[in-house]
This record gives sequence, structure tokens and C-alpha cells, in this order.
Amino acid sequence: MDLQYPLELLGTFVFAISGALAVRDKEHDVFGAGFTGFVTAIGGGTLRDLLLDSHPLVWIGDIHFLYAILLGVLAAFVFPKILSRLRKTMFLFDTLGIAFFTVLGVEKSLSLGFRPEIAAIMGMFSAVMGGVIRDTLVNEIPILFRKEIYASACLAGAILYLVLNYFALQRDINLLISISVIISIRLIAVRYKLSLPRLD
Amino acid sequence: MDLQYPLELLGTFVFAISGALAVRDKEHDVFGAGFTGFVTAIGGGTLRDLLLDSHPLVWIGDIHFLYAILLGVLAAFVFPKILSRLRKTMFLFDTLGIAFFTVLGVEKSLSLGFRPEIAAIMGMFSAVMGGVIRDTLVNEIPILFRKEIYASACLAGAILYLVLNYFALQRDINLLISISVIISIRLIAVRYKLSLPRLD
Amino acid sequence: MDLQYPLELLGTFVFAISGALAVRDKEHDVFGAGFTGFVTAIGGGTLRDLLLDSHPLVWIGDIHFLYAILLGVLAAFVFPKILSRLRKTMFLFDTLGIAFFTVLGVEKSLSLGFRPEIAAIMGMFSAVMGGVIRDTLVNEIPILFRKEIYASACLAGAILYLVLNYFALQRDINLLISISVIISIRLIAVRYKLSLPRLD
Repeated sequence: MDLQYPLELLGTFVFAISGALAVRDKEHDVFGAGFTGFVTAIGGGTLRDLLLDSHPLVWIGDIHFLYAILLGVLAAFVFPKILSRLRKTMFLFDTLGIAFFTVLGVEKSLSLGFRPEIAAIMGMFSAVMGGVIRDTLVNEIPILFRKEIYASACLAGAILYLVLNYFALQRDINLLISISVIISIRLIAVRYKLSLPRLD
Repeated sequence: MDLQYPLELLGTFVFAISGALAVRDKEHDVFGAGFTGFVTAIGGGTLRDLLLDSHPLVWIGDIHFLYAILLGVLAAFVFPKILSRLRKTMFLFDTLGIAFFTVLGVEKSLSLGFRPEIAAIMGMFSAVMGGVIRDTLVNEIPILFRKEIYASACLAGAILYLVLNYFALQRDINLLISISVIISIRLIAVRYKLSLPRLD
Repeated sequence: MDLQYPLELLGTFVFAISGALAVRDKEHDVFGAGFTGFVTAIGGGTLRDLLLDSHPLVWIGDIHFLYAILLGVLAAFVFPKILSRLRKTMFLFDTLGIAFFTVLGVEKSLSLGFRPEIAAIMGMFSAVMGGVIRDTLVNEIPILFRKEIYASACLAGAILYLVLNYFALQRDINLLISISVIISIRLIAVRYKLSLPRLD
């Protein structure tokens, strides 16, 4: 799949935009917004690679990721109003992003020789922990805890990918199915405001 | 000491329960509660092992820990009311847990060849940092900063273990004494609402 | 530069003081204050070294750093009023500290073979992330997001160092210039309450 690398860069770019825009209504200056974009874009993959002891970290070993982030932050600076008006487009990008990063994280963990249970967790972490770290830094309840089905969609997609992989489904088809399922769960959850039940 | 491994699993199980229950009265869905249980259970040991560069992390290298956490989270889901009513029992379990994890963290650090000063810090980190990360994520003042003598009891016990170890006390007796001292300090502090003085 | 090592210890000592004093007006006991001092002093360098996979961490490999922190925390305990009255002196120390740690972080990253772009980020991280972690733990908006030009001064100084280094300026002169520029930017920003513009 030759699309993987450009898609990964694109995902990083989009996460940087959404991270920078996330602090728009707060007391953050442009530097703080850039920093937030940076953390959002690299946080999930960085945590995954630290936990798995996989070095160098993606963005440290391949400088293109840093430039993708810089471009995303710049875009957020230059076109904040346009990008904010594109809320729906950005939401779609974010949904695409978490779906893609989940599967990517699962595949990376498997290829490093880790068990499927660990790969599932790492897939979800890759997708959502950047946002969690961002929210923690800016003193908000992390997205994980407040949104309609979000991280759990990633976990479900990760497990699905692993099950289909176990049954030796062809990788491209598996990718397509797993990513589609994550996206579908998320879109349906937001459309119908579905949440998981609370502990009572 | 053949009890070490099952005790470690039991401690992980109990920490997962208390982590999942910690967000019961908040706006967290079951996934958020499970995530919180997971972070509470693995946070301390994970931070210790990242700082000491000891890989694979305990829960990544041995899948039983993940299942102990899953069981703990499930227990919190299925029996939340019973477990909440067992507040005193849970408190005792938590106290046992931090005492045990402190000494375990000290021993691991020493066995990896680190200095006693570092081992003392790592023992305390093993015990309390899971709770600190959990509290930070859910936007509360970490337990470390608000509770009656908590982390300092662990640090005291860690130092005591190291002193007795320096004087070549037999390991089993040392374990028993150090763990008992941590538990005693904590119980007495809570019973009499003892806190350390504040900076003034 | 034989001054580097004692200066690094001094910087660690000063960061520990400022970290411990930072929670003075809050509900923290002396242990919490000490913990905060510790985290402030080691946070930046620790994050840098974890990201770069450089082990052992500075304070784990060289026990003198731990003692510098202990001394700093003790100073904050014994002389809190004097030190608080020395607010201006402390501010100057902090400014010296971030300037020095920035350049030190850049040099360490370069010496480990990382690209200048990564070195710039790591320089800034070394200087400011200890304070960011501290603020996150005590539930405040991190200094990075609220202060007059702070982290951006470090980033600017880091980039300046890298540019002058690229043009083969002698190291001592480069150090002097880069550190002076960071200090100057920070002092001018605070004196005239300069902030970077916000995203609008």
C-alpha cells in the first residue's frame, strides 16, 4: 500500500491543525497554539513508541513529520476563520485520522512482535492519546471521557482488524474494513448522540 | 517468596478496581472508567520502568497483568454498588497495594543495579504515580497533594527497607517490617487525620 | 567550558527552589512541595532524554543532581519567606536557568547525532517542560500558555545557537550570545508585558 506514508503525513498535518485550533477561544498566544498542535499531532504515536521502546520516535527519525506539523500549525494561523468554518470538514478529517492511526498503530505493534492484546491498546493509544495529552495540558476533561463514542470506536476497530488478521484476511481488504468500521461507528455515534452507558 | 507474583497480580487487580470506581460520580462512561482503571493499575510501574529504561514494561511483557486489569474493571462494572459499599475494605486493599508496590519497586530498582537513592524514589513512584496520573487525567488535584500522609509513607517505608537491607537483614523479615511500617503509618494517619505541615 | 557542570547543578538547585515555592499558597504539605520541586527540576531534561532514548537519565546516572534538588527543596522549606521576598532574584535565577538549560539541551541533542530541528525542540523542552509538568500536576494552566514570551524565547535562542553553530562560530562565544539573547528577550518581554499575538 503505497498510500500509507503520504496518508500518515496527511494525518499528522490534520491533527496539527485541529490541535492548534482547539485552543483558539482560550488565552493562548500563537506559540501556545503551535505547541498544542504539535503535541496533538505527535502525542499518540510518541506514547506508543515510548511504551514499546521503539526508537527513534517517528517524528524524530523522519523530519518530514515535523514539517507536516509546521505546515498544519501555519495553516491554522493563516486561515483560522476558514478552517473553523470548515468544522464539518475538520471533523471528517479527524475521524479519518483516528481510524487510520488506529490501524497503523496496530500494524506497527504487530510488526515489532507484540501480542495482539497489546497491539489493540497501542492502536487506540496512537489515535487518541495526542488529544488526551492536549486536553490535559489545557486543563480540560480529556476528549476520551466526554465525547460520544470515540476511543472505544478505535478499540473496536483495532480488535476487528486483529480478528480478521487472525483469519488471514488479505491486508488491504482488512484495512479497508477496519477503517470503515471505525469511521462508521464514530459518525453514527455523533449523528445520533450515542454514548456508552455510565457506571451507576 | 513464591507469593510475590500472585500478590503483584492481585495488587494490579485491586488498583484497577479502585481506578475504575474513582470516576463513578463523574460524567464518565464505562469506557472512560475502564481506561481510568487501566491507567491507575499500570501508571506507577510504567513510569518507573520508562525512567529506568527497563523493557519490556511489566504489563507488555506478561499478558496476565492485562487480564488482571480487565477482571478488575469488569468487577467494578458488575458490582459497583457492592464495591462502593466496601469502601473500608477497598481502602485496606489500596493500603496493602501501595505498601507492597513500594517494596517491589525498590527491589526491582536495586536488582537492575541502581543506587539506593534512586531505588527509594522508584519504590514510591511505583506505588503512587498511577493514582497521580489518573487524578491529573480527570482534572483533580492529585492524591499526592491532598491526602493525609500517603506518598510520604511509601517513601519512608522504601528508605526503611533500604536501611535494613544495607544492614543485611534477611529479605523476608525486611519485607514484612517495611510493608508493615508503610501500612501502619498510613492507617494511623487516616485514623487521626494526620498531615504533614504545610510550607508557610 | 569547565563551568558547565557546576552551572547545571546550580540550575537544578534553583529550579527545585522555584518548584517547591510554586505551591506555597496552595493546600500542599511539605512533601507535596518537595515533590513539586523535584518534578520541576528534572521534568524537562527527563522528557528530553526519554524522547531521545538517552539513558541513564541525567539525575539517575549522576546522584549529585538528586542532592542539588534536595538542597533546593530544603532551602525552600527553611527560608520560604526570605526566598519569596527575593522574588526578583528568583525570577532572574529562573531566567538564567531556562537560558542555560536551553543551550545545554541543544548541545546534548546535537552531540547525540540528532538533526538541528530536533535539537531546537529538545533545547526548549529541557528548559520549560519541567514547569509545564508541574503546572499540569497542580491543575494550573501551564506557564507556557499564560506567560509573557517564555518558551518562545527559549526556542528563538535555540535556533540562534544552531544558526551560529552552522556558521562555525566558536562555541564559547556562541553560548554567550545565545544565552544572552534568551535572557534579553525574556527580560524585555516581562518589563514591557510583551506577549505574542493570539489566534483570532
